[in-house]
Amino acid sequence: MDTVAVPVEDVPDVFSPSCPSRLVVERLGDKWTLLVLMALRPGVLRFGELRDKIGAVTPKVLTQTLRSLERDGIVTRTVYAEVPPRVEYTLTDLGRSLLEPVDAIRAWCEIHGDRIAAAREASTV
Amino acid sequence: MDTVAVPVEDVPDVFSPSCPSRLVVERLGDKWTLLVLMALRPGVLRFGELRDKIGAVTPKVLTQTLRSLERDGIVTRTVYAEVPPRVEYTLTDLGRSLLEPVDAIRAWCEIHGDRIAAAREASTV
Repeated sequence: MDTVAVPVEDVPDVFSPSCPSRLVVERLGDKWTLLVLMALRPGVLRFGELRDKIGAVTPKVLTQTLRSLERDGIVTRTVYAEVPPRVEYTLTDLGRSLLEPVDAIRAWCEIHGDRIAAAREASTV
Repeated sequence: MDTVAVPVEDVPDVFSPSCPSRLVVERLGDKWTLLVLMALRPGVLRFGELRDKIGAVTPKVLTQTLRSLERDGIVTRTVYAEVPPRVEYTLTDLGRSLLEPVDAIRAWCEIHGDRIAAAREASTV
């Protein structure tokens, strides 16, 4: 395997405070981000559809979450000049490249949900 | 493929508000959870080591995060009767089964960190 010597500080590491990857982990660890990514898997959704699908989230917080994801190049927001204006959200190519790990997270949650609910119930912590 | 008919409400779905898997996605979307899982990948860590590795998190919030993960059966806390008491954290078998998707998330963040930082910088949103 060919290798190249690079300064240690140039190797991406989520545990390095100045590494851009750290910002990304924090974005994914944002309360609604994973659910937004999962909700947009099948394709395009309007704001109201996204909100109905996710449930529980307030419009204000959902808007903030979507804006952050748009800013990071993960979600595209398209406004159609209709009356009333139609606003649609979809994943960018970069966002879609996150789907593989996000799908794996979702599958894990769906497989182990019952077990974790039982652990939580039985816990004395 | 053999299949069995089950009521729709019994099929795990993170978008069903009453599904246990939903609680799990919300736990993973807790600000520090992904970083704690990543930090505990190599093995056992004491509280102070975990805090140093993660950085930025307050002791109070890290304690809450660890307690939630312990309650969910994802992390084990072991107290050794020494003076001062030694407290160590490690992933349970269930927690370790999350490492594959979490590793994939981490790799994605480390690969795309620069691109996302650039998108954020250039964004007018």
